[in-house]
Amino acid sequence: MTVNVAVVGASGYTGAELFRLLANHPKVNLVGAYGMKNTGKKVSEIHPSLQGIVDLRIEDSDCKKIRQVAEVVFTATPHGVAMKLVPELLRGNIKVIDLSADYRFDDVKIFEKYYVKHESPELKGVYGLPELYRKKIKSAELVANPGCFPTAALLSLAPLVKKKLIDLEHIIIDAKTGTSGAGATPTESTHHPLVGANVTAYKATTHRHTPEINQELSKLAGTTVRAYFTPHLLPIVRGILSTAHVFLKKSMPKPELLEIYREFYRGELFVRVREELPQVNYVVGSNYCDIGVETETDGNRAVIVAVIDNLVKGASGQAVQNMNIMLGFEETEGLRGSALRP
Amino acid sequence: MTVNVAVVGASGYTGAELFRLLANHPKVNLVGAYGMKNTGKKVSEIHPSLQGIVDLRIEDSDCKKIRQVAEVVFTATPHGVAMKLVPELLRGNIKVIDLSADYRFDDVKIFEKYYVKHESPELKGVYGLPELYRKKIKSAELVANPGCFPTAALLSLAPLVKKKLIDLEHIIIDAKTGTSGAGATPTESTHHPLVGANVTAYKATTHRHTPEINQELSKLAGTTVRAYFTPHLLPIVRGILSTAHVFLKKSMPKPELLEIYREFYRGELFVRVREELPQVNYVVGSNYCDIGVETETDGNRAVIVAVIDNLVKGASGQAVQNMNIMLGFEETEGLRGSALRP
Amino acid sequence: MTVNVAVVGASGYTGAELFRLLANHPKVNLVGAYGMKNTGKKVSEIHPSLQGIVDLRIEDSDCKKIRQVAEVVFTATPHGVAMKLVPELLRGNIKVIDLSADYRFDDVKIFEKYYVKHESPELKGVYGLPELYRKKIKSAELVANPGCFPTAALLSLAPLVKKKLIDLEHIIIDAKTGTSGAGATPTESTHHPLVGANVTAYKATTHRHTPEINQELSKLAGTTVRAYFTPHLLPIVRGILSTAHVFLKKSMPKPELLEIYREFYRGELFVRVREELPQVNYVVGSNYCDIGVETETDGNRAVIVAVIDNLVKGASGQAVQNMNIMLGFEETEGLRGSALRP
Amino acid sequence: MTVNVAVVGASGYTGAELFRLLANHPKVNLVGAYGMKNTGKKVSEIHPSLQGIVDLRIEDSDCKKIRQVAEVVFTATPHGVAMKLVPELLRGNIKVIDLSADYRFDDVKIFEKYYVKHESPELKGVYGLPELYRKKIKSAELVANPGCFPTAALLSLAPLVKKKLIDLEHIIIDAKTGTSGAGATPTESTHHPLVGANVTAYKATTHRHTPEINQELSKLAGTTVRAYFTPHLLPIVRGILSTAHVFLKKSMPKPELLEIYREFYRGELFVRVREELPQVNYVVGSNYCDIGVETETDGNRAVIVAVIDNLVKGASGQAVQNMNIMLGFEETEGLRGSALRP
Repeated sequence: MTVNVAVVGASGYTGAELFRLLANHPKVNLVGAYGMKNTGKKVSEIHPSLQGIVDLRIEDSDCKKIRQVAEVVFTATPHGVAMKLVPELLRGNIKVIDLSADYRFDDVKIFEKYYVKHESPELKGVYGLPELYRKKIKSAELVANPGCFPTAALLSLAPLVKKKLIDLEHIIIDAKTGTSGAGATPTESTHHPLVGANVTAYKATTHRHTPEINQELSKLAGTTVRAYFTPHLLPIVRGILSTAHVFLKKSMPKPELLEIYREFYRGELFVRVREELPQVNYVVGSNYCDIGVETETDGNRAVIVAVIDNLVKGASGQAVQNMNIMLGFEETEGLRGSALRP
Repeated sequence: MTVNVAVVGASGYTGAELFRLLANHPKVNLVGAYGMKNTGKKVSEIHPSLQGIVDLRIEDSDCKKIRQVAEVVFTATPHGVAMKLVPELLRGNIKVIDLSADYRFDDVKIFEKYYVKHESPELKGVYGLPELYRKKIKSAELVANPGCFPTAALLSLAPLVKKKLIDLEHIIIDAKTGTSGAGATPTESTHHPLVGANVTAYKATTHRHTPEINQELSKLAGTTVRAYFTPHLLPIVRGILSTAHVFLKKSMPKPELLEIYREFYRGELFVRVREELPQVNYVVGSNYCDIGVETETDGNRAVIVAVIDNLVKGASGQAVQNMNIMLGFEETEGLRGSALRP
Repeated sequence: MTVNVAVVGASGYTGAELFRLLANHPKVNLVGAYGMKNTGKKVSEIHPSLQGIVDLRIEDSDCKKIRQVAEVVFTATPHGVAMKLVPELLRGNIKVIDLSADYRFDDVKIFEKYYVKHESPELKGVYGLPELYRKKIKSAELVANPGCFPTAALLSLAPLVKKKLIDLEHIIIDAKTGTSGAGATPTESTHHPLVGANVTAYKATTHRHTPEINQELSKLAGTTVRAYFTPHLLPIVRGILSTAHVFLKKSMPKPELLEIYREFYRGELFVRVREELPQVNYVVGSNYCDIGVETETDGNRAVIVAVIDNLVKGASGQAVQNMNIMLGFEETEGLRGSALRP
Repeated sequence: MTVNVAVVGASGYTGAELFRLLANHPKVNLVGAYGMKNTGKKVSEIHPSLQGIVDLRIEDSDCKKIRQVAEVVFTATPHGVAMKLVPELLRGNIKVIDLSADYRFDDVKIFEKYYVKHESPELKGVYGLPELYRKKIKSAELVANPGCFPTAALLSLAPLVKKKLIDLEHIIIDAKTGTSGAGATPTESTHHPLVGANVTAYKATTHRHTPEINQELSKLAGTTVRAYFTPHLLPIVRGILSTAHVFLKKSMPKPELLEIYREFYRGELFVRVREELPQVNYVVGSNYCDIGVETETDGNRAVIVAVIDNLVKGASGQAVQNMNIMLGFEETEGLRGSALRP
């Protein structure tokens, strides 16, 4: 038994990654590729690694056509686009996983402050972080796939915030990302001569993943949490390493802290709690989020490091994981590849 | 129906890559990890990306033990090691795929000139390049998996040499490789401060893959061929781009030349002949060899570019492909992943 | 008028960088290269970029010989080596700039806790951060050149700590460094296949630059300060980007904060306070430390980013700057090169 | 005694590199920065590494203004621009060094075939490769600074071609370049996610540096030479490694070949003939061209490797070298920096 799946946003990197993953998913029948750019071309003309694997032609994002062929749709579109398509897709009884920010926010005003005016604010998506919301995802029609930085930051902080073990006023998240997170459009900030041997902090106090992180941390804590988030751009293509610096309310040695994480994530298939701090190349190419901790010798500060592949667990892999949950497939179906290391 | 498979040489990079591929192979039951280093440790302690995926403990390479559990053995050992183990493994009716150079040479004297004294020179392996020797591989007990540079170089030149279309006295192969080909042992030549923003030509006229390339080109041509091979080390982790510069006996426009390649590789599952020159990131992470050609406007020189992932089609992926052929599995089983791009 | 200068520790990277800088210093006469490794070889055999520029032969580190030829000596030796040589060099009336940690600590017990037993604990060096200790350096016989991370961290925090503008209990320093900081000896942590497409947090709570940073912050504050320092290793060769996350006692908009930095560093020749956050490639190859700030919209958290070339302002360039001050040369002599960008 | 110098083309990378070099040239008074983009902005706003070093404002490229302030002008403009400005500059008795291709070709038809229609074809520049044309450069009013690939290729081949030691019909030049050669405009081919872990052969038989190389090789040989040139793009920022594969007419061991190079370049200040093959990081940041050779054991093929920094010896450094020669300065003035290694 297979399901008919379409991807809207065929030219972007999360689109490409969806194709890579879905092409090897034994229960998926890839029926359509849609977008506003490159219509008429084959997916494999835009993403040459997919030659002979995904040779579908890219079509205009016409919801009527999509509804005729697809049972599940991934919208891997720029922010502000899915909000125009999703209402009509849902009316066709289609399950939608949106990879943009359009349906991630409980409070549409926050979305509108950081992104654009919302055109379907009445619709609510389930926040697609399976480790926190698996039950809701199971019955969702519309899943809002989390941002890449929030995925890493939330998984690294959830146990401590949920269990109220840390000072909530001094949470620092210092994240490091590869350049693929910037998307497929060339700009000066991804121009190799300037980025290839460089490191940059950007939007150091204003990144729009901050409110997304704070929304979810606040729900975990049951009170308003304001974490401080600063991303950095590195000369690697894939991968996020998110370093959370936190102050423990009660000092704790590393083994005790680690046990809290092990307990919290017991049974989780894509979270690996590790004895030592994980590195980006433990996960790049896979859907894993690896987490490790260190504490000061006197136990008052802890450093929590989480690593993900920004295009897999940080985007398209997690989207497929959400699809698997929504359709009752095995959660790891199509996602069992391990990282390329070296 | 599954087959019991063991890997000898568990600590190296081709070993790691075998584990990555075999862990997702639906017909493989991974029963043992062997080696001389790190015995007693888990595979995933040495290769942390495999945590939860391959947690076998590494054992001493004791052939008796191996024969008790395995039906197929991959020897992913340094040159000179397999020659000590393979005779005994074969006596146990085990099928062996050797990833080292030990059994690649028809003439043991050439092997001994470039490597070490051979300890089982009477044994002959089938040269494991499926696109040239599929039929022999099918019935082989011992397959000698090709070197990474020879794989790319031979696939790029085979049609022209076989069909005698080029001047055999002026074949230049200028290859570029990532650093993972140098193996897991840190040395100055892979020390990041020296290699991270550098390019180096090395063993420019003396690399030991030269006689391997020439052996196979000579068989294709039916006459002694001497190609000139010069490798370069680049600051990428994976990937080989092999540029062959050749002089056509009869000048030919690009479409005609391309058609010869398409014809030669028709039906091949892991060779993609492309309209434009391929890039390394079309194949890294996959078992593909992508090939493209350009010709001078007057058609007398041609440039043939072949790209592979040195650890997949250039080593462990090709080894699994050989296993699939030897066991009558589908040739693409366990090897259907496409490249990570971006 | 020139001064006779010798370098002890000729094979390492800070030694190489001293040679690069001193060879172009108009007032320096390079008279000797010393070390324990590679004696008898030319400096340019070990550092081939210096061929034709520094062809001195490396000699044993014999203090008597050194005293006969040199007026100034740079000890660019591993930690624990300078402490054996410096007393004897000073007895010869030589001025010494030590690039190791041997003389950086006011309290030898802290040194011994993080490094090794001290063999000349009675000797005290002046901490060679010119922006804080210029006057003392001027009359010093022995300068202890700061560590690379402390240089960036201290310059980024000095104004705020000195002026008591921040909460001293929640100072986070999240630093990112290139691999040249790890030195010339190949290890797994600098092996290109593992580091070339990777990011790693290391010694996240235990790095030995932490006590050095805290010693100096405490002196600036006039009270014991404990900052939290976590370094990360990136796949670039040179450069440190140090991100300080601090909480302002009184909230402040960015322009006001920036003005404090401009005032503090007014007249400094190697600190550039910038309107926007600096990037590593603004300074790599130069002796500059560039600093920028951002604040939260409500002004309570600030992010201070400082960038240096770890081998220049973070080591050999700062050492030459110290020499210039000690000898009454222009402080920028031999150090006027700007960064390579792109 | 200083000379007043202006740069036209202030926003590009060769412009930036000219500023970096000229700012430290003791005989240069930098009087103007001109261009079509970013007029009104400071040079250091566009090239932030130059803050406090070159803070000139960029002005419109008005030849009258330029003639009023400058005695020497560097035109670091895109191909096709200098040809509009140079005639008027020369009329003002200004010496011009043009870094574009506009005046490199003896035969304007070849220029027009590969570039654009020429607007001042009557003007001829001296080809600015000092090692071949020093005497002519000395008295030139207009120097055509060579292309980056031709600089490396010609220096690597000149001795062999001049002395007629090789088969002129089978010269292969396989070059590898960093991305800064592509210039300051972001495009897909320099987009980090696609180039950061990739290698690409491009314009494999049609690159416009081919006719430039052939023009000069032909003059050296005294007969028409057609070399075959194929460039590759690597994930490094700076540096070219040019590998020439040639067939010796009379076989020769390496020492004999090396001696020919040593003899040919004796006394040259920026060409270092090396015992072993040079690597890119021997020269990046410097004006050196390092050359090494290897031969087959039977001596019939030779591999000649030349490395340069494409922005220094391959562009702006060589332009300054030419200026030094034209003005009778020491040829190394302002160019004595050695490479950053590591």
